[in-house]
Amino acid sequence: MGQKGSLGIVETEYVSISPPGGFLLECGRKLETVTIAYEAYGKLNRERTNAILIVHALSGDANAAGFHRGARKPGWWDGMIGPGKGFDTDKYFVISSNILGGCKGTTGPSSINPATGKPYGLSFPLVSVHDMVNCQKLLVDHLGIEKLLSVSGGSMGGMQVLSWLTRHPDRVRSVIPISTAIRHSPQQIAFNEVGRQAIMADMNWESGDYYDGPPPDRGLSVARMVGHITYMSDASMRDKFGRQRKDCADPFKFDPDFEVEGYLHYHGENFVKRFDANSYLFITKAMDNFDAAEGGSLHELLKGSDAKVLVIAFKSDWLYPAYQTKEIVRACKLAGIEATYCEIDSTYGHDAFLLEIEEETHLVTHFLKKVYNGYEVMSEYAV
Amino acid sequence: MGQKGSLGIVETEYVSISPPGGFLLECGRKLETVTIAYEAYGKLNRERTNAILIVHALSGDANAAGFHRGARKPGWWDGMIGPGKGFDTDKYFVISSNILGGCKGTTGPSSINPATGKPYGLSFPLVSVHDMVNCQKLLVDHLGIEKLLSVSGGSMGGMQVLSWLTRHPDRVRSVIPISTAIRHSPQQIAFNEVGRQAIMADMNWESGDYYDGPPPDRGLSVARMVGHITYMSDASMRDKFGRQRKDCADPFKFDPDFEVEGYLHYHGENFVKRFDANSYLFITKAMDNFDAAEGGSLHELLKGSDAKVLVIAFKSDWLYPAYQTKEIVRACKLAGIEATYCEIDSTYGHDAFLLEIEEETHLVTHFLKKVYNGYEVMSEYAV
Repeated sequence: MGQKGSLGIVETEYVSISPPGGFLLECGRKLETVTIAYEAYGKLNRERTNAILIVHALSGDANAAGFHRGARKPGWWDGMIGPGKGFDTDKYFVISSNILGGCKGTTGPSSINPATGKPYGLSFPLVSVHDMVNCQKLLVDHLGIEKLLSVSGGSMGGMQVLSWLTRHPDRVRSVIPISTAIRHSPQQIAFNEVGRQAIMADMNWESGDYYDGPPPDRGLSVARMVGHITYMSDASMRDKFGRQRKDCADPFKFDPDFEVEGYLHYHGENFVKRFDANSYLFITKAMDNFDAAEGGSLHELLKGSDAKVLVIAFKSDWLYPAYQTKEIVRACKLAGIEATYCEIDSTYGHDAFLLEIEEETHLVTHFLKKVYNGYEVMSEYAV
Repeated sequence: MGQKGSLGIVETEYVSISPPGGFLLECGRKLETVTIAYEAYGKLNRERTNAILIVHALSGDANAAGFHRGARKPGWWDGMIGPGKGFDTDKYFVISSNILGGCKGTTGPSSINPATGKPYGLSFPLVSVHDMVNCQKLLVDHLGIEKLLSVSGGSMGGMQVLSWLTRHPDRVRSVIPISTAIRHSPQQIAFNEVGRQAIMADMNWESGDYYDGPPPDRGLSVARMVGHITYMSDASMRDKFGRQRKDCADPFKFDPDFEVEGYLHYHGENFVKRFDANSYLFITKAMDNFDAAEGGSLHELLKGSDAKVLVIAFKSDWLYPAYQTKEIVRACKLAGIEATYCEIDSTYGHDAFLLEIEEETHLVTHFLKKVYNGYEVMSEYAV
């Protein structure tokens, strides 16, 4: 492993693709053209065998690593992606794209509907996780990549990883789903529904048709606050905040005064600056509707795949508890697929997949090395 | 134990008390008069030694058991209170009152401020759990009861129980705190803050001054929905809802379609018919501010008390996890107080204290019998 380094300044690129006959969605509707925002780091080798797709969670974007010009913070998984890092850009060509239905450059409910010249709003089709993945496939095709060395992501990213594995097994050499589930439990659906209701309760929401006026910021902020509670753990909140009160706080004042309240407010208020409320609705609904097993058993769908699988979960994650993630491993084993499971001891809760960089780096580095070398050996045989 | 029966029709009574010098609150402000809504079941014995106070949680009221005329549902703890039940009204005189700050008959933010002739709204003083208990003490005094045989309640009820124990040890013979905490963790504060923010984000809230117009129903409904998720458990939600969809639900329709969503909507919408949004703000803030140990250690405050303590927790309760409730037992032991701890194996989550009637009845019946008999023995000695 070389010295770890930063990707430095990176830039989001955009590609608009109009598949013949349109881009067909699971709901039966079509989008004539989809625009995909993506970033790519490292170099694609001559054989095009070193490409890794990174897929993001609910609120992520194409900027997975490196700094946008002028930005103070790097991409959302910068600790994992770059020269000498887990997804080593000295070795691999790493692609990251914004999901379909998002609001960070890829076509979504805030995009202009060509039929009306106005933003889609609620008239945007109810996209699915499989649609998001089909959209990523357009990008992968566009980049001329036949088979991805790996696809990896956590949370809803992990759902996309599972979709790649079941729907496009011939296009992936390996997958790394992290802190995710085959399908949402009622508790996960319930938390998402509360977020959606908070947005739709905001009078500025206007049934999704708010793009000419003030956006439903307060509702979206409440949704994000609920989210943040579920991303942390009881223990990590105790460690971080305790019952600490903010400076000059008066316990008998009605305003929020605990540190933990300030944290939630800060994140709620920041989120509305960078996220579209309708995207929040569409994406959470796609998560809730997702079922990697498609109503049957996952192991039946996985039969015949020769992809290698590394599954990672975290002990204190109660939003996507380890028992859920472990079900993926069980399905792989039943399908005769080589799967490695690792449950990392962390107190960070669901956020752990973004924070436990050292442990994840160790696992990912060795897994990818094995898969990549195996691939090269097989390529030699094919020649 | 006799045959279990219903209390039948019961009625809430109201008493207005104006203590000399006013009712002093912890925040330093005074209420000239407090009105207390209460119910009482069973008969007070001649020695006045068989009175038990039942204290309710966030959304409860004085109607703990029996039916109000025309009501289809009985009081909130009907399974526990009545002839032959855990709190046996054939033996004990059971009192239940609505808390200060509430909206079910006891003085609260929706009450008329005598100084203005209008509802208090946010000008209502920021009451504490200790204030609620001091208000209950007025009622107990009014009823001529020197020493309560027991005080019992779950959740925020348990906090009131702890306040009785630390602040008025000479007025309680025993206490039964259930599914509660010495103080809120940051996670508990965070969930409450999300509920408050949902209410305050509702444009109808009008800084609490909404009594002349439409109330902030959508915000209060979202707050209640968040609450309901935390009252159940991952397992109980799976058992109850699974991923069942409502009849005729279209997976590609944007409206809520999972059963669990319907459940949350139903409870959110019903709650706003019976609860005041400002009371929700004041009561949750009182819970967050509460610290039975008053910044020090609980066992120091408990020293010298001769009350008997029965502490009950439930395994799947993640809102008030058993480890928190157990801290009460530890403090009792350190203070040399006789405390019994029972952790009931239930999948119902926090709701278990309202649902696991059989187990609780068993524990409460035997505990009260022991305490009551002990009390009679001591009375004999005193004669």
